[in-house]
Amino acid sequence: MRMDKLKIGLFGFGVVGQGIFQVLGKSKNANAEIVGICVRNPDKPRAVAADRSLFTASPDAILGNPEVDLVVEVIDDARASYDIVRRALLKGIPVVSGNKAMLARHLPELIEIQRQHDVALLYDASSCGSIPVIRNLEEYYDNDLLLEVKGILNGSSNYILSRVFDHRDSYAEALAQAQALGFAESDPSFDIEGYDSLFKLVIITVHALGAYVAPERIFTYGISTIHDADIRYAREKGVKIKLVAQVVKVSDEHFTMFVMPEFVTPSKYIYSVDDEYNGVVIRGECYDRQFMFGKGAGSLPTASSILSDIMARRHDYRYEYKKSKFMQKPDYTTDITLRIYARYTMTDIPSVLRFTKIREQYAGEESNYVIGDVQLSELLEKRPQLSGADVFLANIPQFFLDRDN
Amino acid sequence: MRMDKLKIGLFGFGVVGQGIFQVLGKSKNANAEIVGICVRNPDKPRAVAADRSLFTASPDAILGNPEVDLVVEVIDDARASYDIVRRALLKGIPVVSGNKAMLARHLPELIEIQRQHDVALLYDASSCGSIPVIRNLEEYYDNDLLLEVKGILNGSSNYILSRVFDHRDSYAEALAQAQALGFAESDPSFDIEGYDSLFKLVIITVHALGAYVAPERIFTYGISTIHDADIRYAREKGVKIKLVAQVVKVSDEHFTMFVMPEFVTPSKYIYSVDDEYNGVVIRGECYDRQFMFGKGAGSLPTASSILSDIMARRHDYRYEYKKSKFMQKPDYTTDITLRIYARYTMTDIPSVLRFTKIREQYAGEESNYVIGDVQLSELLEKRPQLSGADVFLANIPQFFLDRDN
Repeated sequence: MRMDKLKIGLFGFGVVGQGIFQVLGKSKNANAEIVGICVRNPDKPRAVAADRSLFTASPDAILGNPEVDLVVEVIDDARASYDIVRRALLKGIPVVSGNKAMLARHLPELIEIQRQHDVALLYDASSCGSIPVIRNLEEYYDNDLLLEVKGILNGSSNYILSRVFDHRDSYAEALAQAQALGFAESDPSFDIEGYDSLFKLVIITVHALGAYVAPERIFTYGISTIHDADIRYAREKGVKIKLVAQVVKVSDEHFTMFVMPEFVTPSKYIYSVDDEYNGVVIRGECYDRQFMFGKGAGSLPTASSILSDIMARRHDYRYEYKKSKFMQKPDYTTDITLRIYARYTMTDIPSVLRFTKIREQYAGEESNYVIGDVQLSELLEKRPQLSGADVFLANIPQFFLDRDN
Repeated sequence: MRMDKLKIGLFGFGVVGQGIFQVLGKSKNANAEIVGICVRNPDKPRAVAADRSLFTASPDAILGNPEVDLVVEVIDDARASYDIVRRALLKGIPVVSGNKAMLARHLPELIEIQRQHDVALLYDASSCGSIPVIRNLEEYYDNDLLLEVKGILNGSSNYILSRVFDHRDSYAEALAQAQALGFAESDPSFDIEGYDSLFKLVIITVHALGAYVAPERIFTYGISTIHDADIRYAREKGVKIKLVAQVVKVSDEHFTMFVMPEFVTPSKYIYSVDDEYNGVVIRGECYDRQFMFGKGAGSLPTASSILSDIMARRHDYRYEYKKSKFMQKPDYTTDITLRIYARYTMTDIPSVLRFTKIREQYAGEESNYVIGDVQLSELLEKRPQLSGADVFLANIPQFFLDRDN
């Protein structure tokens, strides 16, 4: 363990960046110091009192400072984040990053750079804020007995669904409330269309199964088209609608992944994950189900997760990506059958989507729905036709046919 | 990372030892092999088919085998466990142990031996089976922002309380059922008098706050004297009775610890931890509350936790006990006020126990109770007088005075 003070170059001073500044101040034993803060506009007034002389608009002022031994990157812009992280790593400077959109797209290249330049990139804060999912998958569930990681990975969409279900708010009210409370990302579609969950799922899968699957290959369906009829239906059946991301081994040779709303029964752990909380279930061959629950977002929870990564660097910790070296890694497949609920008004879903079997069909004055079995590959292929405002889909997981039957 | 096969000397072949044997067989990537199994009686027939030539009754046959690069110790007897672990470490052989009673008593010495002989002792399985509590406290919550670790750490007492509360079984029926299912330790008092939880709490505190407190200095009260009157009282108040172990920072300078039954309200995470499950809440200054939930005991869950420790040794992982080196470590105190419920019939509790304030008093034909404020130090001092079968105590945590008021 190094005993001298760790010198940090910080990129970004939004809610998370300011949180890191505060958390480092609170921790008497962190023994780390921010020696430079790169922001777009150094002269902008800030809520948190940081020494003005620390601020710069020039990335080179930080990346070129030989004193800096760790870059912490918490900027909003995925393209700029990629550029900074890549440049820092190529210079041999270790990096802590929280940018899930950037990581989900560029992990294979960034893993390769880490190997070639013998330098560490840590990003536990990128998935589920303060819940240590990545670290546990990498270090603790680091064997091939893992079968499934499934959870609520996005706080703001979950907050919205909780308001709608438990408080009977309208969807629009709930969304406005989430934005007012600062849970929603600057672009809310990121949250409510499922992309935030998707990016986290991509990162999680790298550490769960040692496999990288590009985001565009994964079926992703959000909650923005949810309708009173869907909520009424779920209430009548005694279930909640949650936006669920999952990666599941369907056989020894194959795993599948998708993000979509799900009818969750009260017996499931994630049923009680409400408001802005995240909850992750890790299932393994011998340990059955483990459940981790906590605040998935917010300034200080995310910052304290970044602090864990910073402290880990004091001990030269790095991800080993052990599972990517496993002998028998499973392959990604979308060739599995799901049972889904599809509600529609204008779009004639049964003619758009090829169901292998239709189990129930309902036609009403306001809306219609169909419940049936469909291939995940079919959902992925027809995704563009399913995004109209008059369609809503939900997974009915007790009928996860290829696994349970 | 070492690429050759890890050679394991196994001590003990009970439920956990057999589980390890099975789990190592299941994991294609563990790359570890059991080269010897030390048991009291090598000729006893075993449910799990292991090569007879592996068995020996002589510890020296394993500790003296130069091929062995890891000792895994899962025997029931704390004294024998201490002897084997100590001897292995002094010989420079790393050890994975699951013996909480042994660890809770001997950790300071074993930490010192690890330092002096530069050898690792891992024991994540000792606390909460498959829930990675120790590893997370050591690696992830490895800063000084941690405020509290609180949870249900013993599966069999929790199973009994669940049967009594949810299924309205009698206490005796529930205990018999727990023993029939194999949840209870061979000596059930270990579980139901709170000692199992106590030993886990001692180990957890070493990794939570960097402080070792000997078991006998910690107030511990079990569930064996629970009575219908207590269950009725809790039901009327809409709470459950759970056996809770906790370590809590009460100020910057002090922390406290105790194990006792608690009235748990439905809003608490641990309220829904039922049956043989364990649940742990980790609270920190910035990350608020994190909840981890899973199977705390049983052959395969414990074995898979041991597998995680075995795999960690492939990467030369060891606990650093970082927090024990922190500059400002808090000190242990029992000088705090609790509000408790004390039910009694013969023993005149108000005259035995010095309450600083009595809040409620009830006298009935069957039993009496008093609710009042009492110093933890007073409880510890009077512990011997409180153990009669006619007394039951429970903590009422919303009145944790020194913290919340």
